[in-house]
Amino acid sequence: MQFIDFEEGTAADTLFVNDTTKPTLKQGQVLVKVHSFGINRADTLQRQGKYPAPRGESSILGLEVSGEIVEIAQGEESTASRWQVGDKVFALVAGGGYAQYVAVYASHLMPKPKNVDMPSAAGIAEVFLTAYQSLFQVGGLKSGQRVLIHAGASAVGLAAIQLAKADGCHVSVTASSEKKLAVCEKYGADRLINYKMQNFAECFEQGGVDVIIDFVAGDYVNRNLKILNNDGTIVYLAMLAGRFADKLDMALMLSKRATITGSTLRSRSDEYKASLISDFCQQFFADLESGALRPVIDTQYAINEIGLTHQRLEQNDTMGKLVVSWD
Amino acid sequence: MQFIDFEEGTAADTLFVNDTTKPTLKQGQVLVKVHSFGINRADTLQRQGKYPAPRGESSILGLEVSGEIVEIAQGEESTASRWQVGDKVFALVAGGGYAQYVAVYASHLMPKPKNVDMPSAAGIAEVFLTAYQSLFQVGGLKSGQRVLIHAGASAVGLAAIQLAKADGCHVSVTASSEKKLAVCEKYGADRLINYKMQNFAECFEQGGVDVIIDFVAGDYVNRNLKILNNDGTIVYLAMLAGRFADKLDMALMLSKRATITGSTLRSRSDEYKASLISDFCQQFFADLESGALRPVIDTQYAINEIGLTHQRLEQNDTMGKLVVSWD
Repeated sequence: MQFIDFEEGTAADTLFVNDTTKPTLKQGQVLVKVHSFGINRADTLQRQGKYPAPRGESSILGLEVSGEIVEIAQGEESTASRWQVGDKVFALVAGGGYAQYVAVYASHLMPKPKNVDMPSAAGIAEVFLTAYQSLFQVGGLKSGQRVLIHAGASAVGLAAIQLAKADGCHVSVTASSEKKLAVCEKYGADRLINYKMQNFAECFEQGGVDVIIDFVAGDYVNRNLKILNNDGTIVYLAMLAGRFADKLDMALMLSKRATITGSTLRSRSDEYKASLISDFCQQFFADLESGALRPVIDTQYAINEIGLTHQRLEQNDTMGKLVVSWD
Repeated sequence: MQFIDFEEGTAADTLFVNDTTKPTLKQGQVLVKVHSFGINRADTLQRQGKYPAPRGESSILGLEVSGEIVEIAQGEESTASRWQVGDKVFALVAGGGYAQYVAVYASHLMPKPKNVDMPSAAGIAEVFLTAYQSLFQVGGLKSGQRVLIHAGASAVGLAAIQLAKADGCHVSVTASSEKKLAVCEKYGADRLINYKMQNFAECFEQGGVDVIIDFVAGDYVNRNLKILNNDGTIVYLAMLAGRFADKLDMALMLSKRATITGSTLRSRSDEYKASLISDFCQQFFADLESGALRPVIDTQYAINEIGLTHQRLEQNDTMGKLVVSWD
């Protein structure tokens, strides 16, 4: 089979197509013929050598795919039995998505929603599961509460806006341009903050927020604390401002009984992911089917444009997902 | 009635006995004739003018008492009905404990355990409820996990050691002297770290801890993160090293999916406290009755020694609770 190969530490435009053998299946896995795969920041970091693949996982890039089941592993009928060869699916994978075939745990598969095409389906798993986990399971967001989503026009941001609105929450977002804010508004955001024009922490005079989704850290941490309601939670998904955030304001931490938590999806156990996917589907799959929740695809690329996708992600000029299709 | 009065911002030795009227009862409250009251750091901070009483609460110092019910409010039979005039109790109060009489919500009362005397009972509520809340409800500590308790010989520390051991956990503690560590060991601590002799973060080569109870902040935050297990929680109860902790290490926060949370007890709602007390009693009251859990009283003082109690707390030379008795 073909896959996208790379040498660690090289530039985006050096990604290249190479040949390897198809993956062998472990118990409970199915083989998916990949139609499209999503591009994630973790992929660009892994290419740069800053984010090695977890032990025991494929060293091939790629955390999410759409495609068709072509083989089901022997045994473990209980986990695999709801799936059949020929089923169209999308899935979370711990690696190996940038390939023509990928091994996926049956419990990490979801049926392709009827009204979503294959390329768009490849862009659902990482962003919607990350947003779902961050808002509700890690952040503890409850129906009707108020949430601030930084980088609202990012792929995870746009998924988070939709999920929070679907749960009846008030959604504030930050983004760097009016154009990006207009996209956030289109997907439901209530309060739009251009962080290049305004200090976001000064936009909450009429009451704060219960949950904050942040990718920045740096001087955002204490500013987030200032606008957090009592018993609120700040969920960190990245540290775009660098490894060390500002000196933490413990007076705000204590007086607000605030919680700061770091969260990731990739490093979680297979069992955790299966449970997350099951919870997500139970609460929101019908909304994906109906089109109430929409994967936001910035651009669908052909396989020979793979280098461009990493370049664009590294330039932070995307709104929604980049996906790549084999055919 | 008599109570302990103070002028904000004055020294410990200026606390003085004064006269005022007995408190009037709100719905759901009972009047307790105070036998003894516990001394807490919040009291010394309130005297210094650094920690004002919550709105609507008594401006008299004191967060916990033992004594006898002398009056039950009209109405609200459902919350007060399990109590009768003459019952010996101990209780959490949001203020007003340094007095001969205090109004207490019936839902914030606990029966005095049979084998605990009145002065010792006055030292149970704040420390055991704070420790219980921090370990299990905020920290999420589970039976069999590993916990690090800083300031292990503090009153909250000694309660936390006992509760964690009662739940089958492995307990590490830090303290500033061998004498204090010996007390920690007496109450069940498994690993004793003299933080003046050793960098505590270098004592965990064989695996980290799941929950950390910290009162320090400062350069403890990132050292705590280093020894925290994945998905672990650091609970902050104070900031003895000052308002601003070191620059937060987001790489550790993200890679370990760590949680840092500030917690207090006094500022919580009456409903929260009632629920906390109910949960605590269900899980641990029998252990207080049997003597398996023991309130640790450093010294019982007479009312005219009140200034000395604040002095000792401000000098950090206590092991366990200071309590003061009226008679």
